[in-house]
Parts: sequence; C-alpha cells; structure tokens
Amino acid sequence: MTEKLLCGVDLGGTKLSVGLFHPDGKSVAELKVTDHSHLENDELVSKVAILVHELLESQKIHQESLTGIGVGMAGHINFDKGLIITSSNFPKPFDNYPFRDRLQDKLKAPVTLDNDTNAQAFGEFLFGAGMGKKDMAFITVSTGVGAGIISDGRILRGYTGFAGEIGHTIVDPVSEIRCTCGNYGCLMALSGGLGLPLRYRQCLKQGMVSSIGISADNANKVDGIVLEQGVEAGDEICVRLFEESAVFIGIGIYNLYQSINPQTVILGGGLMNMGFGFMDRIRNKFDSFLQNMVQDKMEIIHAGLGNRSGLLGAAALPLDERNH
Amino acid sequence: MTEKLLCGVDLGGTKLSVGLFHPDGKSVAELKVTDHSHLENDELVSKVAILVHELLESQKIHQESLTGIGVGMAGHINFDKGLIITSSNFPKPFDNYPFRDRLQDKLKAPVTLDNDTNAQAFGEFLFGAGMGKKDMAFITVSTGVGAGIISDGRILRGYTGFAGEIGHTIVDPVSEIRCTCGNYGCLMALSGGLGLPLRYRQCLKQGMVSSIGISADNANKVDGIVLEQGVEAGDEICVRLFEESAVFIGIGIYNLYQSINPQTVILGGGLMNMGFGFMDRIRNKFDSFLQNMVQDKMEIIHAGLGNRSGLLGAAALPLDERNH
Repeated sequence: MTEKLLCGVDLGGTKLSVGLFHPDGKSVAELKVTDHSHLENDELVSKVAILVHELLESQKIHQESLTGIGVGMAGHINFDKGLIITSSNFPKPFDNYPFRDRLQDKLKAPVTLDNDTNAQAFGEFLFGAGMGKKDMAFITVSTGVGAGIISDGRILRGYTGFAGEIGHTIVDPVSEIRCTCGNYGCLMALSGGLGLPLRYRQCLKQGMVSSIGISADNANKVDGIVLEQGVEAGDEICVRLFEESAVFIGIGIYNLYQSINPQTVILGGGLMNMGFGFMDRIRNKFDSFLQNMVQDKMEIIHAGLGNRSGLLGAAALPLDERNH
Repeated sequence: MTEKLLCGVDLGGTKLSVGLFHPDGKSVAELKVTDHSHLENDELVSKVAILVHELLESQKIHQESLTGIGVGMAGHINFDKGLIITSSNFPKPFDNYPFRDRLQDKLKAPVTLDNDTNAQAFGEFLFGAGMGKKDMAFITVSTGVGAGIISDGRILRGYTGFAGEIGHTIVDPVSEIRCTCGNYGCLMALSGGLGLPLRYRQCLKQGMVSSIGISADNANKVDGIVLEQGVEAGDEICVRLFEESAVFIGIGIYNLYQSINPQTVILGGGLMNMGFGFMDRIRNKFDSFLQNMVQDKMEIIHAGLGNRSGLLGAAALPLDERNH
C-alpha cells in the first residue's frame, strides 16, 4: 500500500497556493497564483478546483491517493457548515457562502475548510516548532492578532468555530484606543499593526514629538516596518509603541496561559520579524506575571515554518482527529 | 447486565462528602463528615477509603459494580500524576502528595483525581444546566474566581492540568489592586470575594464614605453577604464594588468567549447568590462587548445543581473521555 498524500490550499487575499505533500510534510509539488482575488465566489471555487486538478495531473496523482484536501482561508469560517461568513481580505463579499460544499462538488477527495490561523497552528503542531506538543497555541502577531489552539492534539474550535479570537479579548478596559470591532482596549488594537496608526496619533495628541516625520493626518503609514525603523532611529513615539506592543502581547499570552495552560506558545506573523529584542520583551513581560507560580514553565518560541505554515497546515487539516 | 454505578468524593476544607449515583445522576446514597480537615495526608486518604467502603456496604454494593471513583478536591492538582500540589483549604500542607495513588492502594475501582472546579463543570455538563452543551464553561464566582472548561464534550485540562485559571488573567493592567498571586489587576482580585476588602479599603482611601460602619482596619469583614446588605442599604462604596464586580466578571466571560467560543457559560459560587440584578449586570456587560458581532449568541446562565455539582461532578469524572 502506498502512502496517502496531503493536499492543501492556502487561500489568501494576495496569493492562492496549492501544495501536495508527503505525510511527513515534505513537499511534492506546489502551485501559486495571484490573479484570483477579484473573482466572484463561484469562480473562485472553480479556480481552486482547476489548480488542484492541474497540480495532481502534473504529478500523475489520482484524488483517490489523497487523505483529503484542506483549505485554509483568511476569514471568518463556520467550520461545521463549511461556510465563509466574511473575509476582509477579498473585495467580493462572501456572506455565508458554502465554499466547502461547492468545492466538494468539483472534487472527489473529502474537503475540509478552516480559517488560516487554525491551519497555521496545526501546521506548526505537526511539522513545525510545535511538533509533539499536544497542548499549544500559535499566535499570529500581524495586522490583527489571533490564535489557533491545539488542545490534547486537536484543533480547539469551540461551538461555532470562533475559538482563538484572542485579539478581541479586553486587556485594558480604560483604554481610549478603539478596535475595528467597536470595543475599546482589545488586545489586537493595543498590540497589532491595525492599532499602530491610532496609537501613533494618540501619542502626538498627548504632546509627544516624533522624529520620523509622519504627521497625524498620515498616521496610517505607520506599520511594522516604519515602527522598526523608528525604533532604530530612537524615535520616542516608536519606542513607546514598540514597548507597549510587547507588553500587551505578553499580557495576552499570560491570559491564554492561565485559561488553557498550553505547553508552548508559538509566535508568528509580520510583527514578529521586528528585531531590537521584541521577542525578549514579550517573554520578559510574561515571566514577570508568572513569577514562581508554576512548576512547569511554558515556552514562548518563534514559528518554525515561517510563511509556509499556512499551506502545510491546510494540507494537514484532514488529519485533525476532531474531523472524524 | 446491571448498570454500573458512579461513586464521587467531594473533598473540601469544610466538608467531605461521598455519594453513590446511578449513571443518570440520580442519588443512591450519600455520606458527609466535617471532622476531616485536620488529618495528616495519609490519615485523610484512609478516612476517604473508609467512607467509600461504608457507603458501599450500606447499599450492599461491590466495588466491581462501579465505573470508578472520582475525587474532586479544592486545590491545585496535577491531574496526570494524581498529585495534590497545594491546597489553601486545609491546615496540613500537601506539597505534591500522591493522593490518587495512595487512595487507589486502598480501593479496587479505578480512582480519578481532579480539582473541584473541573468536577463541578463536568457535573453541570452531564447532569445540570449544561446538559448536551459540548462546548461550555462553568465559572465559580466565590472567594476566588475560576473556570472548568468543557471542550468538545471533554474536560480541557491543558499541559499540566491548570487550564481554567481565569481568575489570574490580567484584565486591568493599571489597577492598584494586588491579587494574592502577587500580580495587579487579576480578574479574581477585581471581582471575587478575596478582593472585596482591598477594594473597600481603596474606596475609603479615595475619600468615599461608607454608611455600613466598617473601618479600613476591619475591611476584612467585607464579604458577599456584607456587600449585598450594603447594596440594599444604598451604601455608595458597596454599590460601586457590586457594580465593578459585575463589570469585571462580564469582561472575564467575554475574554473566555473570544478565546474558546463556548455555547454556554454557567455561573455558580457564593457571590452568584447576590440579588439586585447581579446576573443581569454581568449579562449586560457581556452583551455590550458582543454588539452584533456573531450569529450564534452565547448564553450565560445560573448553575443547575447548586452545591451538589461538586459531588455529582466528582462521581462523573471517570466518565470523561479524556481519561481513556
């Protein structure tokens, strides 16, 4: 009997990747396109199906030789029903679109649809920095902040599939920074890329002076790259935002630690590429809360798969026990 | 074949209860003692074993007729190893005492040991307000605040068994209220009975006037009962503490909702017996964060088993899938 291969689809707003993998995560073949984001919902399904067919044919592989086809999608997913509820990464609205079943109609191997953060978490768990860690969380620190949680070796999805939305936990109830969700003091707004312009503007309003030459009107230009440059230049506002982000990520990790007690927390996402001791600051904040409270120390580490966790994790989705 | 009965032990500092139940939770017989808390560790094990034997003999039941014996304990438990790490409810220290294995040596049916909040959560899940809710949390709002989490029908324990310690999540990083754990702004300190004296004292310091005649030196007398009386009397400090507690419990529930997405959150514990709309205030705070964010609304409800959830839940522990 030959080994069953894994097929994954990483469906983002910028790029759409399809990959074929051995069960140990080793790549067989991959395809990538960037001309998909403006397609209508049904056309997008067709595009994905065509790419899967192309990839399999190029390797002379039958769908029957696959464990399944996993799709990781940057959006709000109803896992049980296989719907894309919304996605802010695509110009066409989805509005509870039954993506999984429509794609299933065009393919023979069983299709699994989940959000990209869960896929990334599962990829890190099976093939990356979380290998063998049955209780772990992957946190993406990017424009937004969110987690994929692995509990006892399975993806923790919760009742409707929204588990892991730690970016919307309230970590500073008296904050004046308002998240896109409408609430004040969300972890995401106080630590992610999304909140940087708001927080930059607030600093200016409080009388702080910036040396990076970005006015309040242009604050939307403040992203992770500008922030890192500002820190390098010693700009007081950038240094403050940088330090505060690390503090709140540390709080978010500590709160997740107390809530679900993972062995390992893996950090990925664009902001984690910042230097200047960003990771160390996060760890220090976490440790300051932890004190000597526990016997078994939790580790906070960088992601192991980089930007490949999404595709590998998507491919691995059909292996999640909770599907069965 | 006759049905297998459940046997539970609720091991608290004040009382020690042992109960025998049908698989549907219906009581067969129960015993309760209150003379156990000063016993040495080994004597306590013997006491529990004797009570179990007495109860079974009184009903002419053999241990072979039990699914198992579950022990719910008010303390820090290492579930995998069956240790009591510490417990603040007993005068004798435990210090990683292997309670489960010592008890197992004296009994034939398999023994399971877990903390009381997990037992209560599992009791509410199988027999109480959470029946049929595969993703739920039970939160005890008492001297401390903690949660037992049921994920996909199983107790979520995490890596070392500490999952659910939401009382130590940081919900107000600039708070001046220090929890017994040493950190500032823990949910427990800002909403549980433990923090009431500290918060009362802080109000006096800020110049607020109390009409209930308790000075800063006697603030330790401020508990849930005093608080409720103060609210009834319209005392401005008590009203503020009451309202703040509801706000922070609401934040804690919302943060847990975003993290693990339960269908239902069940509230129990002494402070939940307070009237004057305490529950409604908690729900309103939660709803104010939720806005129209989701399709499926999470319910927040009172516990269904009252103070019986500990014993029933302990008895049910051997049924938890994750044990097998």
